[in-house]
Amino acid sequence: MHRTKVRIVEDALDANNTIASANRADFDRAGVTVVNFMSAPGAGKTTLLERVAADLPGVRVGVLEGDVEGSIDADRLASLHVPVTQLNTGAGFGGECHLDANMVRLAIPALPLDEIDLLLVENVGNLVCPAEFRIGEDARVMVSAVTEGEDKPLKYPLMFRACELVIVNKIDLLPHLDFDLDKLLYNIDVVHPDVETIVLSARTGEGVEAWREWLLRIAPREEAIA
Amino acid sequence: MHRTKVRIVEDALDANNTIASANRADFDRAGVTVVNFMSAPGAGKTTLLERVAADLPGVRVGVLEGDVEGSIDADRLASLHVPVTQLNTGAGFGGECHLDANMVRLAIPALPLDEIDLLLVENVGNLVCPAEFRIGEDARVMVSAVTEGEDKPLKYPLMFRACELVIVNKIDLLPHLDFDLDKLLYNIDVVHPDVETIVLSARTGEGVEAWREWLLRIAPREEAIA
Repeated sequence: MHRTKVRIVEDALDANNTIASANRADFDRAGVTVVNFMSAPGAGKTTLLERVAADLPGVRVGVLEGDVEGSIDADRLASLHVPVTQLNTGAGFGGECHLDANMVRLAIPALPLDEIDLLLVENVGNLVCPAEFRIGEDARVMVSAVTEGEDKPLKYPLMFRACELVIVNKIDLLPHLDFDLDKLLYNIDVVHPDVETIVLSARTGEGVEAWREWLLRIAPREEAIA
Repeated sequence: MHRTKVRIVEDALDANNTIASANRADFDRAGVTVVNFMSAPGAGKTTLLERVAADLPGVRVGVLEGDVEGSIDADRLASLHVPVTQLNTGAGFGGECHLDANMVRLAIPALPLDEIDLLLVENVGNLVCPAEFRIGEDARVMVSAVTEGEDKPLKYPLMFRACELVIVNKIDLLPHLDFDLDKLLYNIDVVHPDVETIVLSARTGEGVEAWREWLLRIAPREEAIA
């Protein structure tokens, strides 16, 4: 029984990887770099997108918003005048807790791939399953808010291990928390040695410049392509 | 294809409900009230258990700790001298993002059901799937931290709808956030009209008495059973 279950799961992940490769090929053909942006609910993903999406010189940004229901984040981002596409996962039973390659595949015809250089995909807020499903991205970034505690890397190691960049957010609240930033950074290093980290506050803007620079580093510039 | 997928999902939930009923029968026979305790990662579930688990007069408490990996929370609770059982979901592929009825069923032989009146089950931190899987509980309680923003009920409606009680935590941070408490309470009421709410700070203890009283109200007392 257990063996059967494991095999079904492996088949599901194999199928996902196959579709992710097809997505990746489409993105590559269009010259679009794709970032899979993940975190627990309320860690500040949308605010971090608001901070940079309209302010990356020479890089045309698009956003794909993954949510169980509604379009609150897409509505927030609409004022930035970057193309935003909404993807709702609520069609699966009570709602899927992550994006997978096939959901992104179904969204591709709605994406203005010829008009963007960088696609920022905001995943469903969840520290488990989003890390298990590739979507055809070039890089995975996660946000860990200091309000969530220092132990999250140890409790959700796959998420921290799966990422090329870990953003530590909400440091403006540090004076009001019983929280040891060094301990969080140590725990991140335990589960993913030498992973790049950026410590910032999306609210005050402190440290956001490093996040902008990271995106500029991975995104193709218009002039570079032309 | 879509139809097949839906049917498999329904079968999985049917199977889960059947096992949940068997769990419920076992808990009823033992006279144990079971609370399924859910939230996003880092919302404060463990601190809220620490606050009350050893301080419910006449109620013998046990805790079942659900985590993807590790036993950090169980270790924290051990100092309270209440029986704590650890359940890790990491055996499923990258780790299951929720407890289901069968995982709890497998844990039942390890639970001291004859020695407790109230079992507090701390689910995996996640606002989606834990709401979809009954485990044989009497009541479902969720924690929403004010640091997560006012929009969470609208983005994760099933979780807020599935609960008998919504605890709003971390109100000690309100002076330092751009957060409208009335707006959160309004959004909770939109998705789950008239659901009971308790507003508190697990850190300072403000409002924790109402949480303790809520548990005393649903838990059977030793004297009442004897």
